[in-house]
Amino acid sequence: MTNSEPKFRFSAKAGRTTTQPISSLIDLAVQNRNVISLAAGLVDEQTLPVGEVRKLTERILSDELSGQKALQYGTTPGLIELREAVIRHVCELDGVSAEDMSITPDNVIIGSGSQQLLYIITDILVDPGDIVITEWPSYFVYTGLLTSLGASVRAVEMDNDGMSIKSLKNTLEELKRSGDLGRVKIVYLCDYYQNPTGITLSPERREELLEVVRSYSTEHRICILEDAAYRELSCEGRAPRSIKSYEPNNTMVVLAQTFSKSFSPGLKTGFSILPDELSEAVLDQKSCHDFGSSNFAQHLILRAIRSGDYAGHVEVLRRRYMDKRDAMLTSLRENLGDFEPEQTSWTTPGGGLYVYLTLPERIDTGPNGNLFKAALSEGVVYVPGEYCYGPDPRRRPERNHMRLTFATVDEQSIHEGIARLRRAIRSLTDGNYRPAGAGFARKVEQA
Amino acid sequence: MTNSEPKFRFSAKAGRTTTQPISSLIDLAVQNRNVISLAAGLVDEQTLPVGEVRKLTERILSDELSGQKALQYGTTPGLIELREAVIRHVCELDGVSAEDMSITPDNVIIGSGSQQLLYIITDILVDPGDIVITEWPSYFVYTGLLTSLGASVRAVEMDNDGMSIKSLKNTLEELKRSGDLGRVKIVYLCDYYQNPTGITLSPERREELLEVVRSYSTEHRICILEDAAYRELSCEGRAPRSIKSYEPNNTMVVLAQTFSKSFSPGLKTGFSILPDELSEAVLDQKSCHDFGSSNFAQHLILRAIRSGDYAGHVEVLRRRYMDKRDAMLTSLRENLGDFEPEQTSWTTPGGGLYVYLTLPERIDTGPNGNLFKAALSEGVVYVPGEYCYGPDPRRRPERNHMRLTFATVDEQSIHEGIARLRRAIRSLTDGNYRPAGAGFARKVEQA
Repeated sequence: MTNSEPKFRFSAKAGRTTTQPISSLIDLAVQNRNVISLAAGLVDEQTLPVGEVRKLTERILSDELSGQKALQYGTTPGLIELREAVIRHVCELDGVSAEDMSITPDNVIIGSGSQQLLYIITDILVDPGDIVITEWPSYFVYTGLLTSLGASVRAVEMDNDGMSIKSLKNTLEELKRSGDLGRVKIVYLCDYYQNPTGITLSPERREELLEVVRSYSTEHRICILEDAAYRELSCEGRAPRSIKSYEPNNTMVVLAQTFSKSFSPGLKTGFSILPDELSEAVLDQKSCHDFGSSNFAQHLILRAIRSGDYAGHVEVLRRRYMDKRDAMLTSLRENLGDFEPEQTSWTTPGGGLYVYLTLPERIDTGPNGNLFKAALSEGVVYVPGEYCYGPDPRRRPERNHMRLTFATVDEQSIHEGIARLRRAIRSLTDGNYRPAGAGFARKVEQA
Repeated sequence: MTNSEPKFRFSAKAGRTTTQPISSLIDLAVQNRNVISLAAGLVDEQTLPVGEVRKLTERILSDELSGQKALQYGTTPGLIELREAVIRHVCELDGVSAEDMSITPDNVIIGSGSQQLLYIITDILVDPGDIVITEWPSYFVYTGLLTSLGASVRAVEMDNDGMSIKSLKNTLEELKRSGDLGRVKIVYLCDYYQNPTGITLSPERREELLEVVRSYSTEHRICILEDAAYRELSCEGRAPRSIKSYEPNNTMVVLAQTFSKSFSPGLKTGFSILPDELSEAVLDQKSCHDFGSSNFAQHLILRAIRSGDYAGHVEVLRRRYMDKRDAMLTSLRENLGDFEPEQTSWTTPGGGLYVYLTLPERIDTGPNGNLFKAALSEGVVYVPGEYCYGPDPRRRPERNHMRLTFATVDEQSIHEGIARLRRAIRSLTDGNYRPAGAGFARKVEQA
């Protein structure tokens, strides 16, 4: 058979699925070692727990029996001891008990990162044409999977306190009026140090959000999908309680977390805590996908939690990322503090890995725009904001933002990267630009 | 919200997906330690490469840089060095070169076991109502995912040489006549020591199968999905060349393999080699599922291949499984050799983990039948054959077979398990039964 002969006929889903744009950005950075990537969604490499994992794998493998257990197949929901540990861990983060949340290990499913669980949970609820409510902007891998599943997105405004409850209400009310409430399946939020903005849903809004979604769950129950991937990476103090923790009966909220950011992405292990009704359906799908995630990785993470290495490592990360966040915020002030201040701003994340930069509307940050090219020729890449706006038919992606990560490179490269970005911006906007350093104003930072 | 309030409304796919029956069988065995499981799809625990993995993880983690690389995120297709090693490995198994197959590392994708790749490949080709051709019987996790995706199954007869080419031709011709050829997307085969029968597709049929499927690829290209999960576990000599290896242009066949059976299931790492056109579509889906499988496991397996530990371990496994296979075949002869020989038979697998036992048609081996209950009360479980017949609307699942695995338990338990099975069968069929040992006849073993 040659290529001129008949081609494969793909499924409707394959036809809908698009290539994740960030892959090509990472390729760009990898291809050219001189490029500073403020784009790549990696974690800080220096802080990866090599010593801890070495010690823990040695413990697992120096005993023949425990080694065999870890190298054998696991179960579809995941290692029972890890699921128990997950409950204790989340309860400690939330300051509530398992009884307060009505959860048992049967409500916990371990996945290949939290991403796999986000995928499956959405897949069991959403048919093509169904509606998922997201933040605006939202996490592009998630909105990419919504496109793949044929979901329609209704995006809700954010401010510095996260998803606007007023905008959420308006959106739901509008959907109710247009007779579309029956198609709304999920409200998805990345509610801690959001990807891409770095913004956290304020404590005050958490219970309110639950109430609003509940009050519109008239035709069927709408699922709140709480993506808490970054929650443990708080820079200062404790992150707020999860939305999940406000729900006493475990009926509506799925909490998804991962050990990728807080321990090691290479182990690709995350978890979700779900209502009974969803657990079963998720397990049935997971049986088809892989009948269980890496058992070895689960044994390793369980050991890390039990030995205290996990908690210790999270503390190291929090300090490290705080320093790097501060470096980025300082650099932004120094380099862009005086650049059209009325129209230029950036977020001040309380943790996580990202800062979201907003430029004047006339500056197109998109991958085919002049700024992206100028930045690349200066030797810096970022994630264009336009990737972060899901397929909401009523809205147009915004093109004057960018996601900057302080996770991947060190402080010196953060400073150099932001300086390069400044030069790129200046090269496009020469007339309007006042050079930095000549007395920059401290900015009012906003979403 | 209480449970009397509105419930979740699931997707059509969730509605189609059924619970994998084998989970409950494994639970049965786990709950009762006195039960000998000839059902569980685990590997032999004693042979798991604990020492090798210990040495290799130590090598990865004793160096800070190599440790960091393994604990960081990987890429969606998988570690490039591992994809290169996979090509060398498959070429060596097949005795051909990468050029002979027109493959490069871009045609290799690493997955969470081969199962994830079977899932995604099917998902990108199959819409509800599309047709997948399988063997009869077939691998129940695969036919379970076909049900989940809404595929219709057309099953093709097998004999001791695997899928019958004549039956395949007849099936395709029938589909052509009924105007359904345009809905046929995949021909799926587990062509080495098949799960559940242990049968291998003969060398002679491999090229012929390729020709037949090619000749019916008139409306679009039909994909041959070659599930070679067990290929390295050959008892005697070399397993046949893959179907893939007969295809010079890499246009039609997807070869899927796993390191779960040949090294360690706990690492949950498999791979597929695909035509260009499919690679891209699979990667787009994998970006939504997990954007890459465990990087740490991939580094580990790469080291195992490079150090020779992998090849050495496969040799150990082959000898071990051969001994256990022989134990099961001996036990079957001793215990069932004289049991209604006209209607009782079992397969003699050349490798892999399974023997398929056929009993007289009046004996229902199903999970609700008397034999399953009698076996359980004797303290032995098997996989009822009826699970292994996909949703082919023209056929009824056969109810007088069972899949027996010699993988999980040791020789003594194999003998004891088969003896218990004999007692269970005898308890149902007392009148017809002649006790074993009283001069059993060597059986003509057949599919």
